[in-house]
Amino acid sequence: MKYELYYWPEIQGRGEYVRLALEEAGAAYVDVARGPRGSGAMMKMMEVHKGTPPFAPPFLKAGKRVIGQTANILLYLGARHGLAPKTEAGKLWVHQLQLTITDLVVEIHDTHHPLGPSMYYEDQKPPAKKRSADFWEERVPKYLGYFEGLLAANGGAYVTGRRLTYVDLSLFQIVAGLRYAFPKRMTAFEKKIPDLISLHDRVALRPNIKAYLASERRIAFNEQGIFRCYRELDA
Amino acid sequence: MKYELYYWPEIQGRGEYVRLALEEAGAAYVDVARGPRGSGAMMKMMEVHKGTPPFAPPFLKAGKRVIGQTANILLYLGARHGLAPKTEAGKLWVHQLQLTITDLVVEIHDTHHPLGPSMYYEDQKPPAKKRSADFWEERVPKYLGYFEGLLAANGGAYVTGRRLTYVDLSLFQIVAGLRYAFPKRMTAFEKKIPDLISLHDRVALRPNIKAYLASERRIAFNEQGIFRCYRELDA
Repeated sequence: MKYELYYWPEIQGRGEYVRLALEEAGAAYVDVARGPRGSGAMMKMMEVHKGTPPFAPPFLKAGKRVIGQTANILLYLGARHGLAPKTEAGKLWVHQLQLTITDLVVEIHDTHHPLGPSMYYEDQKPPAKKRSADFWEERVPKYLGYFEGLLAANGGAYVTGRRLTYVDLSLFQIVAGLRYAFPKRMTAFEKKIPDLISLHDRVALRPNIKAYLASERRIAFNEQGIFRCYRELDA
Repeated sequence: MKYELYYWPEIQGRGEYVRLALEEAGAAYVDVARGPRGSGAMMKMMEVHKGTPPFAPPFLKAGKRVIGQTANILLYLGARHGLAPKTEAGKLWVHQLQLTITDLVVEIHDTHHPLGPSMYYEDQKPPAKKRSADFWEERVPKYLGYFEGLLAANGGAYVTGRRLTYVDLSLFQIVAGLRYAFPKRMTAFEKKIPDLISLHDRVALRPNIKAYLASERRIAFNEQGIFRCYRELDA
């Protein structure tokens, strides 16, 4: 079975956490909206008539099933491709961590869109500056400090210990994204999270991830996605 | 086994989605921080040393296990107390809907805290007005329209059909909360979501929920929680 991933074709966005899991697993998949069927095929799947239409991309078609919400897709893929523990307790713990990353991703998006997703960034620059300052003062230390603490406490190569899970892939993306969006602030902050930086580097060197990052399948960061580089929001 | 729920003792907040599930299930639980052990017991559980510390409340202690993140707790409880379908596909679908509600809850919080959770509301009133206006113009119709569409399409009493799930309990809370926080805007909007309003009323009449709402265990809405009634943000 070949998975079908449905996500916006021009950005990494929330779809990237799913792409990284599919790539690490070596799973066969089509990134539908980047192919000839385009975004139209994606929009059609979201129409509410009957069945289980997703609210928003990304969503994954696996045979007849359509699964939406990034963390939910990872919960599904993790169990099938060895990207999560096998026990119920382990599955819930890794999912809990992914949901905490989900919360962080919303706050990252809010740094450039504090007045909501409908208005352009250009129409909300002053509040974006305030929100970005608070994000780096209060929220980044809290979130990344939490994951750094988990890594330090378990002494393992990955967040849950010796084996990689989809959470490690997502943390790689968080570090890479914050480096892109806030190069000055992140450079200054990185000395506080040495284990997270090591984790990022370790993930980047995994053969399947390395090949993916060098391929055309990896969309470059840009100012349509979650991580946007606006000089005025960096320190 | 008696569950221990850990959440802020003065507010409904995100803990309320868990309380409603525990109450509907008739499960034995202690709302720890509301008892003699207070919030101190909760803060202590969040220290990162080893094991699986939660990032933030709410979290649930079930025997030796500690489960964090609202939707993750509901995933766990749903399977044990008949508040979710038994099939894997059904479980993932209901969880997906809960994660969409989770996204909505963040946006509700952002209406009064667009510049982030660290600053007081009083220091972000003008952006809060803008965000609230956008929320009601763009986001409420999109989110509630989606759930209204699901209810209309399946023709059932509850979102997934004839049987109640934890998602229905959460949608009850969304309707009740929006009525409290934005009485004028919500009154004007309700005619567009008749099935959601019926769902709210149906949930409120379930014996266990009815008893809970009339009890002292139900904390009143107030301006420390997610749903806050600020006249200037209402139409």
